[in-house]
Amino acid sequence: MAHITVSVEYGLHCLLWLAESDGKPLSSRDLADLQGISHSFLAKIFPKLEKAGIVHATGGVRGGYLLARAPEDISVLQIVDAIEGRKPLFDCQEIRGRCAIFGDPPPDWATGGVCSIHLVMLRAEKAMRDALASQSLADIGQMVANKAPPHFSSDVEGWITARLGGRLGKSSTSSPGEEVCS
Amino acid sequence: MAHITVSVEYGLHCLLWLAESDGKPLSSRDLADLQGISHSFLAKIFPKLEKAGIVHATGGVRGGYLLARAPEDISVLQIVDAIEGRKPLFDCQEIRGRCAIFGDPPPDWATGGVCSIHLVMLRAEKAMRDALASQSLADIGQMVANKAPPHFSSDVEGWITARLGGRLGKSSTSSPGEEVCS
Repeated sequence: MAHITVSVEYGLHCLLWLAESDGKPLSSRDLADLQGISHSFLAKIFPKLEKAGIVHATGGVRGGYLLARAPEDISVLQIVDAIEGRKPLFDCQEIRGRCAIFGDPPPDWATGGVCSIHLVMLRAEKAMRDALASQSLADIGQMVANKAPPHFSSDVEGWITARLGGRLGKSSTSSPGEEVCS
Repeated sequence: MAHITVSVEYGLHCLLWLAESDGKPLSSRDLADLQGISHSFLAKIFPKLEKAGIVHATGGVRGGYLLARAPEDISVLQIVDAIEGRKPLFDCQEIRGRCAIFGDPPPDWATGGVCSIHLVMLRAEKAMRDALASQSLADIGQMVANKAPPHFSSDVEGWITARLGGRLGKSSTSSPGEEVCS
């Protein structure tokens, strides 16, 4: 499995739709259907984004998720950490103290501070995280917008309006949580 | 499992010993015993390092592994790639074409070029790989040397000399390959 998993890919695509929703809340089912992905899979991702303060949920028949901050203020790193948790690039097992030359316990110089191998890995991890932190949801949205034809934005708006119109036409109420459990 | 696994940690520690062996070949069993790690685990790593041209093997009773290049000319990235293979940080599933707004097939603009999300991940991967490429085995060796007391180098030399003396005292011949299979 790749370090940054398909959960991030699903989450990022759907956050891009929320950035385009013009303040209209979308449920995880709306987003899954719009993106053409599994609702049950997506429904496990959005509570993590809510817990991290990236989206917030509203209830009721008009309920769904909204971005909690402007897309410019949501970094890709924040999204990755929210979905994946803070998992290390390298999980040092501290084998440096096991050298046959050392006694038991090994000398302090051999086990004090950060292992030199671990230090190199931490620098690589920092470089990766800095690169992810330097890009925002708005940056990705702009890249997509630069590729899309002029009518795409209104196509998205039309899909969302039709979807919400259909949901409002139903008699039952719903919430992001109910959508998640359905 | 972390993206850069314990196999890299084991391999790097043992390559550091080879950098200190003063031209004396060490088998994977010698290296495993010196580092205090599993020989069977290490024996799966060294053939990968040999295939990548980082070490070379010599046979016979004095047989073992030697660095194939100076430690200054072996980057941490080369070691990671040799052991882990070239695995991506993010494995794009190309879900961008599944949007409900698109027809079948989706429009060329939506699926042409690299996905914008993938592009951000590739930049992060490049930053990580550049950081690993900027550090050599010699750099890590110097970091360790800066921590170690003056007698450590001769302690290592003494261990290796005693080990090879014991091996030469045996009547049977050995090779890195035999060591691997034992």
